[in-house]
Amino acid sequence: MIEVALSPTEIKDYRSQPLDSFTSVVFDTLRATSSIITGLAHGVTAFVPLETLEEARARKRSDPALLLAGERRGVAPPGFDLGNSPREFKKLAGQKILLTTTNGTAALRSVAGSAEVLVGALLNIDALAAAVAESRPTQLLLVCAGTHEDFSLEDAITAGALVHRLCSLGQQELSDAAILVRCLYEKVADDLEVWLKRSRNGRALLEINKENDIVDCSRLSVLSAVGVLRGEEVVLRA
Amino acid sequence: MIEVALSPTEIKDYRSQPLDSFTSVVFDTLRATSSIITGLAHGVTAFVPLETLEEARARKRSDPALLLAGERRGVAPPGFDLGNSPREFKKLAGQKILLTTTNGTAALRSVAGSAEVLVGALLNIDALAAAVAESRPTQLLLVCAGTHEDFSLEDAITAGALVHRLCSLGQQELSDAAILVRCLYEKVADDLEVWLKRSRNGRALLEINKENDIVDCSRLSVLSAVGVLRGEEVVLRA
Repeated sequence: MIEVALSPTEIKDYRSQPLDSFTSVVFDTLRATSSIITGLAHGVTAFVPLETLEEARARKRSDPALLLAGERRGVAPPGFDLGNSPREFKKLAGQKILLTTTNGTAALRSVAGSAEVLVGALLNIDALAAAVAESRPTQLLLVCAGTHEDFSLEDAITAGALVHRLCSLGQQELSDAAILVRCLYEKVADDLEVWLKRSRNGRALLEINKENDIVDCSRLSVLSAVGVLRGEEVVLRA
Repeated sequence: MIEVALSPTEIKDYRSQPLDSFTSVVFDTLRATSSIITGLAHGVTAFVPLETLEEARARKRSDPALLLAGERRGVAPPGFDLGNSPREFKKLAGQKILLTTTNGTAALRSVAGSAEVLVGALLNIDALAAAVAESRPTQLLLVCAGTHEDFSLEDAITAGALVHRLCSLGQQELSDAAILVRCLYEKVADDLEVWLKRSRNGRALLEINKENDIVDCSRLSVLSAVGVLRGEEVVLRA
């Protein structure tokens, strides 16, 4: 059965549940999980998702060799080495990166108790589908990170892209929310960049002149890296 | 701006908010709001939504002239006069009906503090769109009643049908969730009965031999009645 946590409010419901029978896949399409996949595909050794600025800055102080990346209101907080644009993570092979973003890192931490936590984006959707199909979980939870407290269109589109592919690979049991996101994806699949720009996050990125990020995040299945949470780090899944 | 509470978890978030600037529209497509619209269209004077069986039975004892209707696990509870099938409410002109269902009545009560609470179904979708367009709310909240704690496909489809129509009437500001349900509706609009049968509630109704109810609830815009919450009663909106 494929379940979907559509929004941060729904994700909270899973925080208190035993998730050890679940494989979870976290989507923060604009931009945290797209940045993570881009980094891992280009040799970053690990991302450490952290929920608060304080936590991230404290870790940086105790280990200055790590790079500090992330965003608040779309831009890198003061003193950070990097923001949250996928293209910033293309030339950092061999580095380990502390990452704190508004929703993506919190979503990753919320489902950390799952049997396996994968990291998804449009960028790696076919590789992700292959990884899920290979591990054959009895319960699959797709986690749409959202924006602050709200549902985000682009995360549901990406979740739908995965459901669409898993159905092609033989998956049949879908929750109503899984049917929903599949229908959404099939409706918008031919114009992903256009629909990402129509989303609230897309419009916010356009306003701060980050159109390139939307373009970068809307590319479908151009990378074969899949991220997996091991302890507190997201690393390349073998 | 059109907002959408996609699931019971999200509806709970609105319980504590001041809703006096909102017009809310509640959808419990399979079957509570479809039954209400069918009843109002056929002369039922009012429905009184009640959350618990105890509450409903107590009201019936204190006023035995009222009819007691509703469901648990899809069927009428012991001692009830009526279940929750739309066709049961076609020959009850002049009657007042106490109604308790798993999700629909709770959703109605959750947004009772709104400036206006309307009742929606596929059955009355054009009349509903006209009523909303006429009242020109600055904030419109579409409430998908769901199933127990979960998102229900059929409520999102109906919410999407309304968004689709409001966009045709000039509405432009959509939240991401409003875009989502509109996309869903546009994907499934040509086969509403098929998609209602694919939903979790649809499959549950098929299992208890209530296919007729799905057929009845999937008819698009065949009734012009719109329900509105006045005090504790849902009545015909003038």
